[in-house]
Amino acid sequence: MTDKTEKSDLMDKIVSLCKRRGFVFPGSEIYGGLANSWDYGPLGVELKNNIKNLWWKTFVHGRDDMQGIDAALIMNPKIWEASGHTTAGFADPMVDCKKCKKRFRSDHLPEDTKICPDCKGELTEPRMFNLMFRTFIGPVEDESALAYLRPETAQAMFVDFKNIIDTMHPKIPFGIAQMGRAFRNEITPGNFIFRTREFEQMEIEYFVREKDWQEFFEYWLDQMHQWMDLIGLSSDKIHHLEVPDGERAHYSKRTVDFEYDFPFGRKELYGIAYRADFDLKNHMEQSGVDLRYFDDMSGERFLPHVIEPTFGVDRTLLAVLSESYTEDEVNGEIRTYLKLPTIIAPYKVAVFPLLANKPQLVEKAREIYNDLKLEMRVAWDDGGNIGKRYRRQDEIGTPYCVTVDFDTIEKDDTVTVRDRDTLEQTRVRASELKNYLREKIK
Amino acid sequence: MTDKTEKSDLMDKIVSLCKRRGFVFPGSEIYGGLANSWDYGPLGVELKNNIKNLWWKTFVHGRDDMQGIDAALIMNPKIWEASGHTTAGFADPMVDCKKCKKRFRSDHLPEDTKICPDCKGELTEPRMFNLMFRTFIGPVEDESALAYLRPETAQAMFVDFKNIIDTMHPKIPFGIAQMGRAFRNEITPGNFIFRTREFEQMEIEYFVREKDWQEFFEYWLDQMHQWMDLIGLSSDKIHHLEVPDGERAHYSKRTVDFEYDFPFGRKELYGIAYRADFDLKNHMEQSGVDLRYFDDMSGERFLPHVIEPTFGVDRTLLAVLSESYTEDEVNGEIRTYLKLPTIIAPYKVAVFPLLANKPQLVEKAREIYNDLKLEMRVAWDDGGNIGKRYRRQDEIGTPYCVTVDFDTIEKDDTVTVRDRDTLEQTRVRASELKNYLREKIK
Repeated sequence: MTDKTEKSDLMDKIVSLCKRRGFVFPGSEIYGGLANSWDYGPLGVELKNNIKNLWWKTFVHGRDDMQGIDAALIMNPKIWEASGHTTAGFADPMVDCKKCKKRFRSDHLPEDTKICPDCKGELTEPRMFNLMFRTFIGPVEDESALAYLRPETAQAMFVDFKNIIDTMHPKIPFGIAQMGRAFRNEITPGNFIFRTREFEQMEIEYFVREKDWQEFFEYWLDQMHQWMDLIGLSSDKIHHLEVPDGERAHYSKRTVDFEYDFPFGRKELYGIAYRADFDLKNHMEQSGVDLRYFDDMSGERFLPHVIEPTFGVDRTLLAVLSESYTEDEVNGEIRTYLKLPTIIAPYKVAVFPLLANKPQLVEKAREIYNDLKLEMRVAWDDGGNIGKRYRRQDEIGTPYCVTVDFDTIEKDDTVTVRDRDTLEQTRVRASELKNYLREKIK
Repeated sequence: MTDKTEKSDLMDKIVSLCKRRGFVFPGSEIYGGLANSWDYGPLGVELKNNIKNLWWKTFVHGRDDMQGIDAALIMNPKIWEASGHTTAGFADPMVDCKKCKKRFRSDHLPEDTKICPDCKGELTEPRMFNLMFRTFIGPVEDESALAYLRPETAQAMFVDFKNIIDTMHPKIPFGIAQMGRAFRNEITPGNFIFRTREFEQMEIEYFVREKDWQEFFEYWLDQMHQWMDLIGLSSDKIHHLEVPDGERAHYSKRTVDFEYDFPFGRKELYGIAYRADFDLKNHMEQSGVDLRYFDDMSGERFLPHVIEPTFGVDRTLLAVLSESYTEDEVNGEIRTYLKLPTIIAPYKVAVFPLLANKPQLVEKAREIYNDLKLEMRVAWDDGGNIGKRYRRQDEIGTPYCVTVDFDTIEKDDTVTVRDRDTLEQTRVRASELKNYLREKIK
């Protein structure tokens, strides 16, 4: 087996596979699309849900110190003033062409560009364009009704902080976690689902005593690496970028971006930031509500400091797809498969009757299919020859294929279990199949 | 046991419990809230996820004829023109007071009201106010950049119809399912999470041959009843409202609203509509893309007709909470508990050491807690006397409580399992506890 894939066209192949096999469709496609928006299809929604459920299981259910929430997407606009999102800091610099009226991000043009790259017209001075989507609540479209689509999930966890401590009484250190949609009115989205105007985040705000921040920063760095390992990202493609002084937010003493070697280059996948008590302090000042944590052991009342691990859902999918997309050569033909970790594969196993027109084979395969379905996700395929069906399951990343053939019904009640990655075929007794697969996919 | 709850204050009690126990917090509360928005807290997000996951398992994973999707929330605005959402049909009639400038829904005022109910000023003629939230993509806020937050999840399933049939090759009849946020700029939201501007839907578009629509309408009516039964809604609180001629959309030959007896009255919970080929036909005309289904058995090419079962997520939670909120009298005191079906309860079991200051009890209880956690959601509580802990678990609907006491460690290795609904206490051997509970919660 040799790796036939060139980095240069790998993205095209992934996008094509995603569309062809129902992972990701261009949004609003029959109407010519819309602004780099994407819809998750039947396979994509399963892969995405598996990733989100695994994250929740790992970081919320698997821990005793984490509180989950799911807040409204449209929050009181004062929140975005307190967080700094309404200011120039959360904005892109833009220039307009005075002649053709086209608009560009000035930081994407060569420095000191004065002339439109399209029509050579004169460009305006850069102006800042805020990245939040605006809308209006109620029938009157004026400032008093102005609201924003949240540009991140994080702030809700600070805004709900008091309700969490009043109702759940967590002991410090503890975290609040949220998964959900966020929106940024990017001037230049791109690279498939890497940068979109509408995206999903999985975020944690982890509250600690100030003196402990370094310890927990290291702890969460490690937790994030364990997560990336769990979803199959190879460590040699992951790079720490220590964000240097001057580029970090002023309140942060440390921020690390996790960069991943995507097919289009090394780009930010995740991030972790030490936010000190910046958010709680601002919200306390702006809202006038006491957000201090009371420690009933020591009698202290204080604002906790925060470590914030952030995970982009769509970027996770893209990294997982990039990592798992594989081509090898089988019997002189190129085989394409997704080497997805079993834990997140949309289907764990596929069941085939060798021939679709032999009722005994179909009946037996159906029986196996229905039985397996009780505890794992199973695909059914009875179309075309077995080789074609293997290829179809390979492309969607199904780790195991089970074929019911004449030996199954006439001889020894065994089926063939074929492994996606090793191509090994094993005969397994039908009665032992469920246990066999249960062990494999554990 | 007697039902001490009066309908009139039941809603107040539910809202209060939801806030007190971390189910639902007022959105943006520290900033004075925002327009009847609500955040799901640690218990609420679990209840909501359990309901959504159960729905997906039932209607997508549990079937061979259903394709799931998760589409962008902001879609091409042409979609909402084709679907009729930009027209007067998706709008509320409103009047303004010329004196105090207040705005009212005219269909919520007594007929022919001419004078402001607040200040007795003169009211304007009714004007139609479209219910879609508007926003702008990119930096220029003009008509060409106008976009809407989707007012329903349904249209994405029609827009992605062609991609689904091209990639998944489903055989008719088949369905497309989606769960997710939708937004309506309601003039008068209210009744807690019953009517909010931002809400979640679980929807199915089920595609059939025209001649089969009545059969599948009945089939989905029945499926919806089975679902309501599964989540514990009693059938005597559910009522069919056959939407009469003249009130249905013109293309629909039958629409049924499922009304539920909420504490504040009989109101719409779910709906099912026969939409004929209205949506696919309009999108085919407006987009110019052929959306006909090709039947390779008969060689026909035709637009399928659609049965649409719609489930509101937040209304499901409210119905479940209303149904399960119970007060009875135990030892002369009022006990409040949520009689949640085990399948959707946030925690299936709670584990207590009898005394928090006896290390052997805590250690043994911890061991049981950690073991149970491997396969079910478990709460831990070591605060206060056992009676108080029972009450706390009752209020969040935990079906079983396990107490580790001195008999456990000194005598016979048994623990007490207490049943939320019957209050029965059973001694179970610790080694058999997991099997015992597994059977109970199955």
